[in-house]
Parts: sequence; C-alpha cells; structure tokens
Amino acid sequence: MSFLQHLESIVGQVDGAIACSVMGFDGIAVETHQAPAAAAQTASLELTTAWVEYANILSQLKSAAETLKTGAIAEVSVNSDNLITLMRMVTPEYFLVLGLKPTGNYGKARYVLRITAPKVKNEL
Amino acid sequence: MSFLQHLESIVGQVDGAIACSVMGFDGIAVETHQAPAAAAQTASLELTTAWVEYANILSQLKSAAETLKTGAIAEVSVNSDNLITLMRMVTPEYFLVLGLKPTGNYGKARYVLRITAPKVKNEL
Repeated sequence: MSFLQHLESIVGQVDGAIACSVMGFDGIAVETHQAPAAAAQTASLELTTAWVEYANILSQLKSAAETLKTGAIAEVSVNSDNLITLMRMVTPEYFLVLGLKPTGNYGKARYVLRITAPKVKNEL
Repeated sequence: MSFLQHLESIVGQVDGAIACSVMGFDGIAVETHQAPAAAAQTASLELTTAWVEYANILSQLKSAAETLKTGAIAEVSVNSDNLITLMRMVTPEYFLVLGLKPTGNYGKARYVLRITAPKVKNEL
C-alpha cells in the first residue's frame, strides 16, 4: 500500500473528514488526500496554511517533551470553530495530520489515526 | 463559587485527573487544584513546567488562528506517553488546563471542561 491509499482509507472511514496528509516537521507535506466533496469548500483552502503553522508548533512541543518528563508526544489536537485538526506522530521526522469539520466524528478520527500510524511508519 | 471549587469539581468528576488550573497565556496559574492521590506522583511534579511551555504554545496557536480562517481556538490537547493535557479557552486572556493519566477518561475530561469553562468565565 502506498501512502496515498492509507490517506484515502483514513478520509473514507471518518465522517466529516476534509483532508489528510503525511507531513514532515518542516511543514512540507509528503502526500495529501482531500475528500472529493471538500475540494470546493473554503475550509480546505485554508488547511495547508494552518498545517504549516501547526507543524511548527508540533515541532516545538516535541522539543519541549524531550526536556520535560511527560514522555514522547503521541497525539495533538487543535479544535477551532471551523476546523478540528488531529496530528499523530509517525516517526521523529513525520506525522499524520487530519482535518475534520467541527461536526465530524472526533473519536473515530483518533482511533483511525492511531491504527494507521504504524502502517504508514512501515513504509517510511 | 470560587475558581477553586470549579477546579475541585473538574478533578473530582474525571477519572485519572491529576491536576487542574486556571492559567493566563503568560504561563502564570491563577489557581490550581491537585488530586490528593496525585500529590506524591512524579507526574504532578512535572506538570507546572509542562504547562508553562504549553501556555506559550497555546498563545502562538491563538495568534495563528487570528490570521488563518479556521476560527477561534476552542480546545487543544497534547497526549504524551505519561500525561494527557487538555486546554480549553475561557477568555482571550485565560484558559483551563487539566492533566490526566494516560489511562484517564479523556471523553469525560473534554465534556467537563467544555461545560465548566463558561462558569469560570462568569467569575473572571
């Protein structure tokens, strides 16, 4: 399975999913899949910009975790009025990021990212 | 009801809660309640340091949200190996932060923070 198939599978399984990427901590997406219906939505237009910003913040959290005794960061979510963003670590260099509508299935999204992250890791 | 009573109520309602604070974006806690059993745990010793770091990151997310079209940030969670941290905005200056064991009730924690935030807001 390629990255793209994993991303398609995530977006397909989660109600309200807008888009999913494998992203590096430098803010550059390796691969992205966008839900077809979402392509026309303004929300999706802002995703890339938001995620670059979030990648930077996630990178800071990761550095902070190294000095704190909280253990490695596994998952971060940022819920704003128009968008839920879930990020799940894959390797020290890459993470999965999923954008959801605020009405999307948050619990399912967390679950699907958690089980898909090791599969993506195997291909990196 | 004082801040402290709200914080006690949050910690009391959520299984696995370690501590809860009302915190400013400058990283200074206004009020904190720690679960009695948690006082002896090493996890709680690291909470304050972690939260100061998180407050700084939350502040950056808030600034980012102003330039992005994702709407205002409502909730951020950072899940690491030894600690789940949930942050819920109260006002543009203050937020609630709750530390949970990784085995704690994440869903209940989100719910309780969501319903308690407006009550805390009324007293700020």
